[in-house]
Amino acid sequence: MNLILLLKEDFIAGHDRVRLSGRRHKHIRDILKSSVGDELCVGVEGSRIGRGRVLAIDNKTIEMNVTLEKNPPLPLPLTLILALPRPLVLRRVLIHSTVLGVKKIILLHTKRVQKSYWQSPALTEEKIREQFILGLEQAKDTVMPEIQFRKRFKPFVEDELPGMIKGIQAFVAHSEGDAAHPVKGARPVILVIGPEGGFIPYEIEKLKESGCRVVNFGERIMNLETAVVACISRLM
Amino acid sequence: MNLILLLKEDFIAGHDRVRLSGRRHKHIRDILKSSVGDELCVGVEGSRIGRGRVLAIDNKTIEMNVTLEKNPPLPLPLTLILALPRPLVLRRVLIHSTVLGVKKIILLHTKRVQKSYWQSPALTEEKIREQFILGLEQAKDTVMPEIQFRKRFKPFVEDELPGMIKGIQAFVAHSEGDAAHPVKGARPVILVIGPEGGFIPYEIEKLKESGCRVVNFGERIMNLETAVVACISRLM
Repeated sequence: MNLILLLKEDFIAGHDRVRLSGRRHKHIRDILKSSVGDELCVGVEGSRIGRGRVLAIDNKTIEMNVTLEKNPPLPLPLTLILALPRPLVLRRVLIHSTVLGVKKIILLHTKRVQKSYWQSPALTEEKIREQFILGLEQAKDTVMPEIQFRKRFKPFVEDELPGMIKGIQAFVAHSEGDAAHPVKGARPVILVIGPEGGFIPYEIEKLKESGCRVVNFGERIMNLETAVVACISRLM
Repeated sequence: MNLILLLKEDFIAGHDRVRLSGRRHKHIRDILKSSVGDELCVGVEGSRIGRGRVLAIDNKTIEMNVTLEKNPPLPLPLTLILALPRPLVLRRVLIHSTVLGVKKIILLHTKRVQKSYWQSPALTEEKIREQFILGLEQAKDTVMPEIQFRKRFKPFVEDELPGMIKGIQAFVAHSEGDAAHPVKGARPVILVIGPEGGFIPYEIEKLKESGCRVVNFGERIMNLETAVVACISRLM
């Protein structure tokens, strides 16, 4: 927790005073071992970053006076379209992506995604928000990513994706891609990553038709978690 | 397991026949559901990659006829020097690094590394080899990485690192680094990554003196696991 993320409901008595309990209180008391007068890095969800000066701390709550000073880091102009991974990997991938600054994630069904994954509690709004918060606290960011689900591959790729791609670049990371994975793009970009077993040929065809370029990342076949971070960071 | 990694002791009757049991047998039988006549991707530790044709499979063992056809992927010419992370993260980082093709890893003690980590069972040769094997099986590689431990920061950085750096580039990934993280280097490179809490100023000074350039990866502070993959993949 490099930044304490403050939510609207934390504020008491106007704009500059917060009261926290639960996980953040515990972290500040037990890990940071802060006491009255100490200053911590804070940020308001969706807003600015600054300092929180500890006014009072007891066994249950902490109160801070908040001064906001600067904007959060710029978002990464990258939309991540990801075949829904298994729940444990999803959790970690959501954190990695948030840490790297991704602000838009679309989870997609493909042939090799197990249908049962869509029933996982890891997909509840609350659980997803938990991972996003962990990522924001790590990266000293305040802007919550947005997530969408697309449970039908074909309508998404045929009807929706071409419109998203208009005017920007889109890449599918695929071990049999014909071009090397591009490096760097300050411009907005769409990155599509398949399931552990890979896209099936039909899916690759449809993605190409929608306007995506199929690229590879060398000979090695990466597990999903490594691939997500590796591909995003090369496009940063 | 995109490749079944074969060890010397698996070979029976000459150069082309192996008998496997345990984890690999279970994977081939239960996950791949292979039967007699099927061909699997195999590779011999430290050697070539090819196909294994199933000759016999029962409840305990599998026998294959092996044909080797090509060399493993080229190693990544990158030495990873990493402050020893906590055991759970170490496990995942060893897999990520192996998947990305790193062949030399040095685990280093720094001020903010908890001393108890050095006692972890995760550091036994057997446990480390397990992670390396998982990474090789994932990436379709056969060449085991080499790992070394350096429990004393100063002698390593003063006496050993300058010699390693001679003629090649070395980077320290550090949130306060003055240059942006470099992208791409086909040439050999050394990458130094600190502990979750970061290097202390003294350590950064010593690393600079040894010949390292201190670079950053943007405003965001990454957790160690994300940082390792992101930094390596930008240098690939």
